[in-house]
Amino acid sequence: MAAREPVMTAAELTGYLAEVFPQTDPGLRIDAVAPMRATLSHPITERHLRPGGTVSGPTMFALADVGFYVAILAMVGREPLTVTTNLSINFLRKPSLEPLSCEARLLKLGRTLVVGDVTLFSGDAPEPVAHASATYARSRG
Amino acid sequence: MAAREPVMTAAELTGYLAEVFPQTDPGLRIDAVAPMRATLSHPITERHLRPGGTVSGPTMFALADVGFYVAILAMVGREPLTVTTNLSINFLRKPSLEPLSCEARLLKLGRTLVVGDVTLFSGDAPEPVAHASATYARSRG
Amino acid sequence: MAAREPVMTAAELTGYLAEVFPQTDPGLRIDAVAPMRATLSHPITERHLRPGGTVSGPTMFALADVGFYVAILAMVGREPLTVTTNLSINFLRKPSLEPLSCEARLLKLGRTLVVGDVTLFSGDAPEPVAHASATYARSRG
Amino acid sequence: MAAREPVMTAAELTGYLAEVFPQTDPGLRIDAVAPMRATLSHPITERHLRPGGTVSGPTMFALADVGFYVAILAMVGREPLTVTTNLSINFLRKPSLEPLSCEARLLKLGRTLVVGDVTLFSGDAPEPVAHASATYARSRG
Repeated sequence: MAAREPVMTAAELTGYLAEVFPQTDPGLRIDAVAPMRATLSHPITERHLRPGGTVSGPTMFALADVGFYVAILAMVGREPLTVTTNLSINFLRKPSLEPLSCEARLLKLGRTLVVGDVTLFSGDAPEPVAHASATYARSRG
Repeated sequence: MAAREPVMTAAELTGYLAEVFPQTDPGLRIDAVAPMRATLSHPITERHLRPGGTVSGPTMFALADVGFYVAILAMVGREPLTVTTNLSINFLRKPSLEPLSCEARLLKLGRTLVVGDVTLFSGDAPEPVAHASATYARSRG
Repeated sequence: MAAREPVMTAAELTGYLAEVFPQTDPGLRIDAVAPMRATLSHPITERHLRPGGTVSGPTMFALADVGFYVAILAMVGREPLTVTTNLSINFLRKPSLEPLSCEARLLKLGRTLVVGDVTLFSGDAPEPVAHASATYARSRG
Repeated sequence: MAAREPVMTAAELTGYLAEVFPQTDPGLRIDAVAPMRATLSHPITERHLRPGGTVSGPTMFALADVGFYVAILAMVGREPLTVTTNLSINFLRKPSLEPLSCEARLLKLGRTLVVGDVTLFSGDAPEPVAHASATYARSRG
Protein backbone atom coordinates (compact mmCIF):
# COMPACT_ATOMS: atom_id res chain seq x y z
CA MET A 1 0.00 0.00 0.00
CA ALA A 2 2.98 2.28 0.64
CA ALA A 3 3.60 2.28 -3.10
CA ARG A 4 0.10 3.35 -4.11
CA GLU A 5 -0.19 6.86 -5.49
CA PRO A 6 -3.29 9.05 -5.85
CA VAL A 7 -5.11 8.61 -9.15
CA MET A 8 -6.84 12.02 -9.11
CA THR A 9 -5.31 15.45 -8.53
CA ALA A 10 -6.74 18.12 -6.24
CA ALA A 11 -8.01 20.01 -9.30
CA GLU A 12 -9.71 16.93 -10.72
CA LEU A 13 -11.30 16.18 -7.34
CA THR A 14 -12.55 19.77 -7.05
CA GLY A 15 -14.25 19.46 -10.42
CA TYR A 16 -15.73 16.08 -9.59
CA LEU A 17 -17.18 17.28 -6.25
CA ALA A 18 -18.77 20.31 -7.95
CA GLU A 19 -20.36 17.96 -10.45
CA VAL A 20 -21.70 15.25 -8.13
CA PHE A 21 -22.27 17.39 -5.02
CA PRO A 22 -23.44 20.81 -6.26
CA GLN A 23 -24.56 21.57 -2.70
CA THR A 24 -20.99 21.30 -1.38
CA ASP A 25 -19.91 24.30 0.68
CA PRO A 26 -18.99 26.89 -1.96
CA GLY A 27 -15.88 27.96 -0.03
CA LEU A 28 -14.51 24.41 0.21
CA ARG A 29 -10.97 24.04 -1.10
CA ILE A 30 -9.02 20.83 -1.63
CA ASP A 31 -5.56 21.99 -0.62
CA ALA A 32 -3.54 18.83 -1.24
CA VAL A 33 -3.72 15.12 -1.84
CA ALA A 34 -1.01 12.58 -1.09
CA PRO A 35 -0.94 8.79 -0.80
CA MET A 36 -3.79 7.85 1.59
CA ARG A 37 -4.22 11.51 2.64
CA ALA A 38 -6.05 14.70 1.77
CA THR A 39 -6.10 18.25 3.19
CA LEU A 40 -9.13 20.51 2.81
CA SER A 41 -10.25 23.88 4.20
CA HIS A 42 -13.00 26.45 4.06
CA PRO A 43 -13.58 29.91 5.53
CA ILE A 44 -16.13 30.31 8.33
CA THR A 45 -19.16 32.32 7.33
CA GLU A 46 -22.47 33.14 8.99
CA ARG A 47 -24.00 29.81 7.90
CA HIS A 48 -21.37 27.81 9.82
CA LEU A 49 -22.05 29.43 13.18
CA ARG A 50 -24.08 28.73 16.25
CA PRO A 51 -25.16 31.62 18.43
CA GLY A 52 -22.32 32.84 20.59
CA GLY A 53 -20.03 32.85 17.57
CA THR A 54 -19.11 29.17 17.79
CA VAL A 55 -18.63 26.99 14.74
CA SER A 56 -21.50 24.48 14.76
CA GLY A 57 -21.07 20.75 15.25
CA PRO A 58 -22.71 19.87 11.91
CA THR A 59 -20.19 22.18 10.17
CA MET A 60 -17.28 20.20 11.63
CA PHE A 61 -19.03 16.89 10.95
CA ALA A 62 -19.58 17.90 7.30
CA LEU A 63 -15.94 18.90 6.77
CA ALA A 64 -14.66 15.65 8.32
CA ASP A 65 -17.04 13.65 6.15
CA VAL A 66 -16.17 15.32 2.84
CA GLY A 67 -12.46 15.32 3.71
CA PHE A 68 -12.49 11.58 4.23
CA TYR A 69 -14.49 11.05 1.03
CA VAL A 70 -11.97 13.12 -0.96
CA ALA A 71 -9.07 11.08 0.46
CA ILE A 72 -10.81 7.91 -0.76
CA LEU A 73 -11.63 9.30 -4.21
CA ALA A 74 -8.03 10.45 -4.62
CA MET A 75 -6.91 6.82 -4.25
CA VAL A 76 -9.66 4.92 -6.05
CA GLY A 77 -11.10 7.38 -8.59
CA ARG A 78 -14.77 8.17 -9.16
CA GLU A 79 -17.01 6.07 -6.92
CA PRO A 80 -20.26 7.95 -6.42
CA LEU A 81 -21.94 5.14 -4.49
CA THR A 82 -19.33 4.96 -1.74
CA VAL A 83 -21.11 6.03 1.47
CA THR A 84 -20.37 6.82 5.10
CA THR A 85 -21.33 3.98 7.42
CA ASN A 86 -19.88 5.41 10.65
CA LEU A 87 -18.49 8.74 11.69
CA SER A 88 -17.45 9.22 15.31
CA ILE A 89 -16.33 12.75 16.16
CA ASN A 90 -14.70 14.05 19.32
CA PHE A 91 -14.99 17.80 19.84
CA LEU A 92 -11.80 18.94 21.56
CA ARG A 93 -11.63 22.73 21.65
CA LYS A 94 -13.75 25.70 20.64
CA PRO A 95 -12.71 26.82 17.13
CA SER A 96 -12.01 30.47 16.38
CA LEU A 97 -13.66 32.16 13.38
CA GLU A 98 -10.60 31.62 11.22
CA PRO A 99 -10.77 29.06 8.39
CA LEU A 100 -11.40 25.46 9.35
CA SER A 101 -9.11 22.84 7.83
CA CYS A 102 -8.79 19.08 8.03
CA GLU A 103 -6.27 16.34 7.40
CA ALA A 104 -7.87 13.04 6.39
CA ARG A 105 -5.90 9.82 6.58
CA LEU A 106 -6.85 6.36 5.32
CA LEU A 107 -5.68 3.56 7.61
CA LYS A 108 -7.26 0.75 5.63
CA LEU A 109 -8.31 0.91 2.00
CA GLY A 110 -10.16 -2.36 1.56
CA ARG A 111 -12.30 -3.60 -1.27
CA THR A 112 -15.43 -3.35 0.89
CA LEU A 113 -14.59 -0.97 3.74
CA VAL A 114 -12.33 2.06 4.06
CA VAL A 115 -11.35 3.11 7.60
CA GLY A 116 -9.35 6.09 8.80
CA ASP A 117 -9.42 9.34 10.70
CA VAL A 118 -9.67 13.08 10.18
CA THR A 119 -8.13 15.79 12.34
CA LEU A 120 -9.64 19.28 12.25
CA PHE A 121 -7.82 22.55 12.86
CA SER A 122 -8.90 26.17 13.27
CA GLY A 123 -6.71 28.83 11.65
CA ASP A 124 -3.03 28.35 12.43
CA ALA A 125 -3.52 26.90 15.91
CA PRO A 126 -1.40 23.75 16.23
CA GLU A 127 -3.82 21.93 18.48
CA PRO A 128 -6.75 20.20 16.80
CA VAL A 129 -10.33 21.35 17.43
CA ALA A 130 -11.84 17.95 16.60
CA HIS A 131 -10.87 14.41 15.67
CA ALA A 132 -13.07 11.93 13.84
CA SER A 133 -12.86 8.24 13.00
CA ALA A 134 -14.67 7.27 9.82
CA THR A 135 -15.75 4.13 7.99
CA TYR A 136 -17.02 4.17 4.42
CA ALA A 137 -18.52 1.26 2.49
CA ARG A 138 -17.52 1.00 -1.13
CA SER A 139 -20.21 0.09 -3.58
CA ARG A 140 -18.93 -0.20 -7.08
CA GLY A 141 -22.14 -0.64 -8.96
CA MET B 1 -33.10 7.85 38.59
CA ALA B 2 -36.29 6.02 37.65
CA ALA B 3 -38.18 8.48 39.81
CA ARG B 4 -36.85 11.60 38.12
CA GLU B 5 -39.34 13.51 36.03
CA PRO B 6 -38.70 16.10 33.31
CA VAL B 7 -38.48 19.67 34.59
CA MET B 8 -39.37 21.34 31.28
CA THR B 9 -42.29 20.61 28.95
CA ALA B 10 -42.05 20.20 25.17
CA ALA B 11 -43.55 23.69 24.77
CA GLU B 12 -41.05 25.25 27.17
CA LEU B 13 -38.18 23.48 25.41
CA THR B 14 -39.39 24.70 22.02
CA GLY B 15 -39.39 28.29 23.28
CA TYR B 16 -35.97 27.91 24.86
CA LEU B 17 -34.39 26.47 21.69
CA ALA B 18 -35.83 29.30 19.59
CA GLU B 19 -34.30 31.77 22.02
CA VAL B 20 -30.79 30.30 22.40
CA PHE B 21 -30.49 28.65 18.97
CA PRO B 22 -32.28 30.95 16.52
CA GLN B 23 -30.57 29.05 13.69
CA THR B 24 -32.31 25.80 14.65
CA ASP B 25 -34.07 24.13 11.72
CA PRO B 26 -37.34 26.08 11.44
CA GLY B 27 -39.34 22.88 10.87
CA LEU B 28 -38.02 21.20 14.02
CA ARG B 29 -40.74 19.96 16.35
CA ILE B 30 -40.32 18.56 19.86
CA ASP B 31 -43.01 15.89 19.84
CA ALA B 32 -42.70 14.54 23.38
CA VAL B 33 -40.54 14.41 26.45
CA ALA B 34 -40.54 11.70 29.09
CA PRO B 35 -38.15 10.72 31.90
CA MET B 36 -34.69 10.46 30.28
CA ARG B 37 -36.20 10.60 26.78
CA ALA B 38 -37.24 13.00 24.03
CA THR B 39 -38.82 12.59 20.58
CA LEU B 40 -38.29 15.16 17.82
CA SER B 41 -39.04 15.42 14.09
CA HIS B 42 -38.78 17.70 11.10
CA PRO B 43 -39.93 17.56 7.48
CA ILE B 44 -37.32 17.06 4.74
CA THR B 45 -36.87 20.07 2.51
CA GLU B 46 -34.45 20.99 -0.26
CA ARG B 47 -31.80 22.10 2.23
CA HIS B 48 -31.62 18.64 3.84
CA LEU B 49 -30.83 16.80 0.63
CA ARG B 50 -27.80 15.56 -1.19
CA PRO B 51 -27.98 15.05 -4.94
CA GLY B 52 -29.82 11.90 -5.83
CA GLY B 53 -32.57 12.79 -3.39
CA THR B 54 -30.83 11.40 -0.32
CA VAL B 55 -31.04 13.04 3.09
CA SER B 56 -27.53 14.32 3.86
CA GLY B 57 -25.34 12.97 6.66
CA PRO B 58 -25.01 16.40 8.36
CA THR B 59 -28.84 16.62 8.46
CA MET B 60 -29.04 13.34 10.39
CA PHE B 61 -26.09 14.31 12.58
CA ALA B 62 -27.77 17.63 13.43
CA LEU B 63 -31.08 16.00 14.38
CA ALA B 64 -29.35 13.42 16.59
CA ASP B 65 -27.36 16.18 18.28
CA VAL B 66 -30.29 18.48 19.00
CA GLY B 67 -32.47 15.53 20.04
CA PHE B 68 -29.98 14.46 22.65
CA TYR B 69 -29.54 18.04 23.87
CA VAL B 70 -33.32 18.42 24.27
CA ALA B 71 -33.50 15.17 26.28
CA ILE B 72 -30.85 16.59 28.64
CA LEU B 73 -32.50 20.00 28.99
CA ALA B 74 -35.82 18.32 29.73
CA MET B 75 -34.24 16.67 32.78
CA VAL B 76 -31.89 19.39 34.07
CA GLY B 77 -33.40 22.67 32.87
CA ARG B 78 -31.62 25.51 31.10
CA GLU B 79 -27.91 24.77 30.70
CA PRO B 80 -26.64 26.74 27.72
CA LEU B 81 -23.01 25.75 28.23
CA THR B 82 -23.59 22.00 28.01
CA VAL B 83 -21.76 20.84 24.87
CA THR B 84 -21.32 17.74 22.74
CA THR B 85 -18.01 16.03 23.38
CA ASN B 86 -18.59 12.92 21.22
CA LEU B 87 -21.17 11.88 18.69
CA SER B 88 -20.75 8.57 16.91
CA ILE B 89 -23.33 7.89 14.22
CA ASN B 90 -24.00 4.69 12.28
CA PHE B 91 -25.88 5.17 9.02
CA LEU B 92 -28.09 2.11 8.54
CA ARG B 93 -30.48 2.64 5.64
CA LYS B 94 -31.25 5.28 3.04
CA PRO B 95 -34.04 7.54 4.34
CA SER B 96 -37.04 8.38 2.21
CA LEU B 97 -38.15 12.01 1.77
CA GLU B 98 -40.76 11.68 4.49
CA PRO B 99 -40.20 13.49 7.80
CA LEU B 100 -37.19 12.47 9.84
CA SER B 101 -37.74 11.73 13.52
CA CYS B 102 -35.59 10.68 16.45
CA GLU B 103 -35.88 9.13 19.86
CA ALA B 104 -33.17 10.25 22.26
CA ARG B 105 -32.47 8.29 25.43
CA LEU B 106 -30.20 9.20 28.34
CA LEU B 107 -28.36 6.19 29.81
CA LYS B 108 -26.36 8.17 32.33
CA LEU B 109 -27.17 11.63 33.61
CA GLY B 110 -24.08 12.49 35.62
CA ARG B 111 -22.96 15.74 37.13
CA THR B 112 -20.13 16.04 34.61
CA LEU B 113 -21.04 13.78 31.69
CA VAL B 114 -24.31 12.72 30.10
CA VAL B 115 -24.23 9.60 27.90
CA GLY B 116 -26.94 8.00 25.79
CA ASP B 117 -28.11 7.20 22.32
CA VAL B 118 -30.44 8.46 19.62
CA THR B 119 -32.32 6.36 17.06
CA LEU B 120 -33.46 8.01 13.83
CA PHE B 121 -36.45 7.03 11.73
CA SER B 122 -37.78 8.06 8.32
CA GLY B 123 -41.54 8.45 7.93
CA ASP B 124 -43.43 5.51 9.38
CA ALA B 125 -40.85 2.86 8.54
CA PRO B 126 -40.26 0.73 11.65
CA GLU B 127 -36.57 0.14 10.95
CA PRO B 128 -34.18 2.91 11.96
CA VAL B 129 -32.19 4.83 9.35
CA ALA B 130 -29.40 5.77 11.77
CA HIS B 131 -28.28 5.23 15.36
CA ALA B 132 -25.98 7.51 17.30
CA SER B 133 -24.20 7.35 20.65
CA ALA B 134 -23.62 10.71 22.27
CA THR B 135 -21.68 12.19 25.17
CA TYR B 136 -22.25 15.72 26.44
CA ALA B 137 -20.21 17.57 29.04
CA ARG B 138 -22.17 19.69 31.47
CA SER B 139 -20.72 23.05 32.32
CA ARG B 140 -22.78 24.92 34.80
CA GLY B 141 -21.02 28.25 34.80
CA MET C 1 -37.34 -8.00 9.07
CA ALA C 2 -39.98 -7.89 11.78
CA ALA C 3 -41.09 -11.32 10.68
CA ARG C 4 -37.68 -12.97 10.90
CA GLU C 5 -37.27 -15.51 13.65
CA PRO C 6 -34.05 -16.87 15.18
CA VAL C 7 -32.71 -19.96 13.41
CA MET C 8 -30.71 -21.29 16.38
CA THR C 9 -31.83 -21.83 19.97
CA ALA C 10 -29.89 -20.74 23.05
CA ALA C 11 -28.86 -24.37 23.61
CA GLU C 12 -27.62 -24.76 20.04
CA LEU C 13 -25.70 -21.50 20.29
CA THR C 14 -24.12 -22.60 23.56
CA GLY C 15 -22.90 -25.79 21.91
CA TYR C 16 -21.62 -23.95 18.86
CA LEU C 17 -19.65 -21.41 20.91
CA ALA C 18 -18.05 -24.19 22.96
CA GLU C 19 -16.99 -25.85 19.71
CA VAL C 20 -15.60 -22.86 17.80
CA PHE C 21 -14.45 -20.76 20.78
CA PRO C 22 -13.19 -23.23 23.41
CA GLN C 23 -11.54 -20.29 25.18
CA THR C 24 -14.90 -18.63 25.82
CA ASP C 25 -15.44 -17.65 29.45
CA PRO C 26 -16.47 -20.95 31.11
CA GLY C 27 -19.19 -19.23 33.14
CA LEU C 28 -20.82 -17.64 30.10
CA ARG C 29 -24.52 -18.40 29.76
CA ILE C 30 -26.81 -17.59 26.85
CA ASP C 31 -29.99 -16.77 28.71
CA ALA C 32 -32.35 -16.05 25.83
CA VAL C 33 -32.58 -15.31 22.14
CA ALA C 34 -35.38 -13.47 20.37
CA PRO C 35 -35.75 -11.88 16.94
CA MET C 36 -32.73 -9.59 16.50
CA ARG C 37 -31.84 -9.91 20.21
CA ALA C 38 -29.84 -12.01 22.67
CA THR C 39 -29.30 -11.93 26.44
CA LEU C 40 -26.16 -13.35 28.06
CA SER C 41 -24.57 -13.34 31.51
CA HIS C 42 -21.64 -14.62 33.51
CA PRO C 43 -20.59 -14.52 37.14
CA ILE C 44 -17.67 -12.28 38.15
CA THR C 45 -14.62 -14.20 39.30
CA GLU C 46 -11.07 -13.24 40.19
CA ARG C 47 -10.00 -13.21 36.54
CA HIS C 48 -12.52 -10.49 35.65
CA LEU C 49 -11.28 -8.01 38.23
CA ARG C 50 -8.94 -5.08 38.37
CA PRO C 51 -7.36 -4.18 41.68
CA GLY C 52 -9.77 -2.34 43.89
CA GLY C 53 -12.44 -4.92 43.16
CA THR C 54 -13.60 -3.33 39.91
CA VAL C 55 -14.67 -5.38 36.90
CA SER C 56 -12.05 -4.74 34.20
CA GLY C 57 -12.74 -2.91 30.94
CA PRO C 58 -11.65 -5.88 28.79
CA THR C 59 -14.14 -8.08 30.68
CA MET C 60 -17.00 -5.77 29.71
CA PHE C 61 -15.66 -5.39 26.16
CA ALA C 62 -15.50 -9.18 25.79
CA LEU C 63 -19.07 -9.72 27.00
CA ALA C 64 -20.41 -7.01 24.67
CA ASP C 65 -18.52 -8.55 21.75
CA VAL C 66 -19.65 -12.13 22.31
CA GLY C 67 -23.21 -10.98 23.10
CA PHE C 68 -23.45 -9.21 19.76
CA TYR C 69 -21.93 -12.17 17.93
CA VAL C 70 -24.48 -14.52 19.51
CA ALA C 71 -27.35 -12.23 18.47
CA ILE C 72 -26.07 -12.42 14.87
CA LEU C 73 -25.59 -16.19 14.89
CA ALA C 74 -29.07 -16.65 16.28
CA MET C 75 -30.48 -14.96 13.18
CA VAL C 76 -28.15 -16.20 10.44
CA GLY C 77 -26.83 -19.54 11.67
CA ARG C 78 -23.22 -20.70 11.75
CA GLU C 79 -20.91 -18.06 10.26
CA PRO C 80 -17.48 -18.56 11.77
CA LEU C 81 -15.81 -15.92 9.59
CA THR C 82 -18.05 -13.06 10.68
CA VAL C 83 -15.79 -10.60 12.55
CA THR C 84 -15.99 -7.43 14.61
CA THR C 85 -15.00 -4.36 12.61
CA ASN C 86 -15.88 -1.72 15.23
CA LEU C 87 -16.84 -1.79 18.87
CA SER C 88 -17.35 1.50 20.68
CA ILE C 89 -18.03 1.15 24.39
CA ASN C 90 -19.13 3.80 26.90
CA PHE C 91 -18.46 2.93 30.53
CA LEU C 92 -21.27 4.43 32.58
CA ARG C 93 -21.09 3.19 36.17
CA LYS C 94 -18.86 1.02 38.32
CA PRO C 95 -20.23 -2.55 38.30
CA SER C 96 -20.67 -4.47 41.53
CA LEU C 97 -19.30 -8.01 41.90
CA GLU C 98 -22.65 -9.56 41.04
CA PRO C 99 -23.07 -11.31 37.68
CA LEU C 100 -22.63 -9.21 34.58
CA SER C 101 -25.32 -9.48 31.90
CA CYS C 102 -25.95 -7.96 28.51
CA GLU C 103 -28.75 -7.37 26.07
CA ALA C 104 -27.61 -7.29 22.46
CA ARG C 105 -29.83 -5.80 19.77
CA LEU C 106 -29.36 -5.85 15.99
CA LEU C 107 -30.47 -2.62 14.30
CA LYS C 108 -29.41 -3.64 10.81
CA LEU C 109 -28.81 -7.17 9.60
CA GLY C 110 -27.33 -6.59 6.15
CA ARG C 111 -25.68 -8.99 3.77
CA THR C 112 -22.30 -7.34 4.35
CA LEU C 113 -22.57 -5.44 7.63
CA VAL C 114 -24.48 -6.01 10.85
CA VAL C 115 -24.90 -2.99 13.15
CA GLY C 116 -26.45 -2.73 16.60
CA ASP C 117 -25.84 -2.10 20.24
CA VAL C 118 -25.33 -3.93 23.53
CA THR C 119 -26.35 -2.73 26.99
CA LEU C 120 -24.55 -4.18 30.02
CA PHE C 121 -25.98 -4.59 33.50
CA SER C 122 -24.55 -5.57 36.88
CA GLY C 123 -26.67 -7.81 39.09
CA ASP C 124 -30.24 -6.58 39.38
CA ALA C 125 -29.44 -2.88 39.16
CA PRO C 126 -31.79 -1.29 36.60
CA GLU C 127 -29.26 1.24 35.33
CA PRO C 128 -26.74 0.00 32.79
CA VAL C 129 -23.02 -0.13 33.60
CA ALA C 130 -21.92 0.15 29.98
CA HIS C 131 -23.34 0.60 26.48
CA ALA C 132 -21.62 -0.41 23.27
CA SER C 133 -22.27 0.10 19.58
CA ALA C 134 -20.96 -2.67 17.36
CA THR C 135 -20.42 -3.37 13.67
CA TYR C 136 -19.62 -6.82 12.33
CA ALA C 137 -18.64 -7.73 8.78
CA ARG C 138 -20.10 -10.95 7.41
CA SER C 139 -17.85 -13.13 5.38
CA ARG C 140 -19.57 -16.16 4.05
CA GLY C 141 -16.73 -17.51 1.95
CA MET D 1 1.04 22.27 25.32
CA ALA D 2 3.88 21.84 22.87
CA ALA D 3 6.24 22.79 25.67
CA ARG D 4 4.97 20.21 28.15
CA GLU D 5 7.32 17.35 28.88
CA PRO D 6 6.55 13.96 30.44
CA VAL D 7 6.83 13.93 34.24
CA MET D 8 7.43 10.16 34.56
CA THR D 9 9.95 7.99 32.71
CA ALA D 10 9.19 4.64 31.08
CA ALA D 11 10.94 2.91 34.01
CA GLU D 12 8.91 4.82 36.60
CA LEU D 13 5.69 4.05 34.73
CA THR D 14 6.58 0.36 34.56
CA GLY D 15 7.06 0.27 38.32
CA TYR D 16 3.84 2.18 38.95
CA LEU D 17 1.74 -0.12 36.74
CA ALA D 18 3.17 -3.20 38.49
CA GLU D 19 2.18 -1.67 41.81
CA VAL D 20 -1.37 -0.49 41.02
CA PHE D 21 -2.26 -3.10 38.37
CA PRO D 22 -0.58 -6.35 39.45
CA GLN D 23 -2.80 -8.16 36.94
CA THR D 24 -1.25 -6.28 34.02
CA ASP D 25 -0.05 -8.57 31.23
CA PRO D 26 3.32 -9.83 32.53
CA GLY D 27 4.95 -9.40 29.11
CA LEU D 28 3.88 -5.76 28.76
CA ARG D 29 6.75 -3.39 28.05
CA ILE D 30 6.66 0.41 27.99
CA ASP D 31 9.06 1.09 25.14
CA ALA D 32 9.10 4.89 25.13
CA VAL D 33 7.34 7.99 26.33
CA ALA D 34 7.44 11.41 24.69
CA PRO D 35 5.34 14.56 25.05
CA MET D 36 1.70 13.47 24.69
CA ARG D 37 2.76 10.02 23.44
CA ALA D 38 3.66 6.52 24.61
CA THR D 39 4.74 3.32 22.86
CA LEU D 40 4.09 -0.11 24.40
CA SER D 41 4.37 -3.73 23.28
CA HIS D 42 3.93 -7.31 24.42
CA PRO D 43 4.59 -10.74 22.93
CA ILE D 44 1.64 -12.87 21.86
CA THR D 45 1.17 -15.97 23.97
CA GLU D 46 -1.48 -18.67 24.21
CA ARG D 47 -3.69 -16.50 26.41
CA HIS D 48 -3.98 -13.77 23.77
CA LEU D 49 -5.33 -16.06 21.05
CA ARG D 50 -8.67 -17.05 19.68
CA PRO D 51 -9.02 -20.38 17.93
CA GLY D 52 -7.60 -20.25 14.45
CA GLY D 53 -4.49 -18.55 15.78
CA THR D 54 -5.95 -15.04 15.71
CA VAL D 55 -5.16 -12.47 18.38
CA SER D 56 -8.41 -11.86 20.27
CA GLY D 57 -10.33 -8.59 20.23
CA PRO D 58 -10.14 -8.17 24.03
CA THR D 59 -6.33 -8.50 23.79
CA MET D 60 -6.17 -5.58 21.37
CA PHE D 61 -8.72 -3.60 23.39
CA ALA D 62 -6.66 -4.12 26.54
CA LEU D 63 -3.40 -2.97 24.94
CA ALA D 64 -5.05 0.16 23.49
CA ASP D 65 -6.56 0.93 26.89
CA VAL D 66 -3.37 0.54 28.91
CA GLY D 67 -1.34 2.34 26.23
CA PHE D 68 -3.58 5.38 26.44
CA TYR D 69 -3.53 5.30 30.25
CA VAL D 70 0.29 5.21 30.25
CA ALA D 71 0.42 8.20 27.88
CA ILE D 72 -1.77 10.14 30.34
CA LEU D 73 0.21 9.12 33.42
CA ALA D 74 3.45 10.11 31.68
CA MET D 75 2.13 13.67 31.39
CA VAL D 76 0.21 14.11 34.65
CA GLY D 77 1.86 11.72 37.12
CA ARG D 78 0.12 9.24 39.39
CA GLU D 79 -3.67 9.45 39.04
CA PRO D 80 -5.12 6.09 40.02
CA LEU D 81 -8.73 7.25 39.74
CA THR D 82 -8.52 8.30 36.11
CA VAL D 83 -10.82 5.96 34.19
CA THR D 84 -11.82 5.09 30.63
CA THR D 85 -15.17 6.59 29.68
CA ASN D 86 -15.14 5.62 25.98
CA LEU D 87 -13.01 3.39 23.82
CA SER D 88 -13.95 2.93 20.18
CA ILE D 89 -11.80 0.44 18.32
CA ASN D 90 -11.68 -0.33 14.59
CA PHE D 91 -10.19 -3.70 13.69
CA LEU D 92 -8.35 -3.26 10.39
CA ARG D 93 -6.30 -6.37 9.61
CA LYS D 94 -5.65 -9.80 11.08
CA PRO D 95 -2.52 -9.61 13.29
CA SER D 96 0.26 -12.17 12.96
CA LEU D 97 1.61 -13.95 16.04
CA GLU D 98 4.51 -11.55 16.33
CA PRO D 99 4.54 -9.03 19.20
CA LEU D 100 1.72 -6.51 19.32
CA SER D 101 2.69 -2.86 19.81
CA CYS D 102 0.83 0.43 20.11
CA GLU D 103 1.43 4.12 19.76
CA ALA D 104 -0.84 6.21 21.98
CA ARG D 105 -1.31 9.91 21.30
CA LEU D 106 -3.10 12.52 23.43
CA LEU D 107 -4.98 15.10 21.35
CA LYS D 108 -6.47 16.94 24.32
CA LEU D 109 -5.19 16.85 27.87
CA GLY D 110 -7.91 18.69 29.73
CA ARG D 111 -8.53 19.06 33.43
CA THR D 112 -11.62 16.85 33.22
CA LEU D 113 -11.31 14.84 30.01
CA VAL D 114 -8.37 13.45 28.07
CA VAL D 115 -9.01 12.50 24.43
CA GLY D 116 -6.75 10.86 21.87
CA ASP D 117 -6.10 7.79 19.80
CA VAL D 118 -4.03 4.62 19.75
CA THR D 119 -2.70 2.82 16.69
CA LEU D 120 -1.84 -0.89 16.99
CA PHE D 121 0.77 -2.77 14.98
CA SER D 122 1.72 -6.43 14.62
CA GLY D 123 5.43 -7.25 14.37
CA ASP D 124 7.24 -5.04 11.89
CA ALA D 125 4.33 -4.67 9.46
CA PRO D 126 3.96 -0.97 8.61
CA GLU D 127 0.19 -1.09 8.29
CA PRO D 128 -1.81 -0.90 11.51
CA VAL D 129 -3.94 -3.83 12.69
CA ALA D 130 -6.31 -1.64 14.73
CA HIS D 131 -7.01 1.98 15.58
CA ALA D 132 -8.83 3.20 18.66
CA SER D 133 -10.16 6.54 19.85
CA ALA D 134 -10.24 6.93 23.62
CA THR D 135 -11.65 9.28 26.23
CA TYR D 136 -10.61 9.17 29.88
CA ALA D 137 -12.14 11.13 32.75
CA ARG D 138 -9.70 12.46 35.31
CA SER D 139 -10.69 12.21 38.90
CA ARG D 140 -8.17 13.69 41.21
CA GLY D 141 -9.56 12.68 44.52
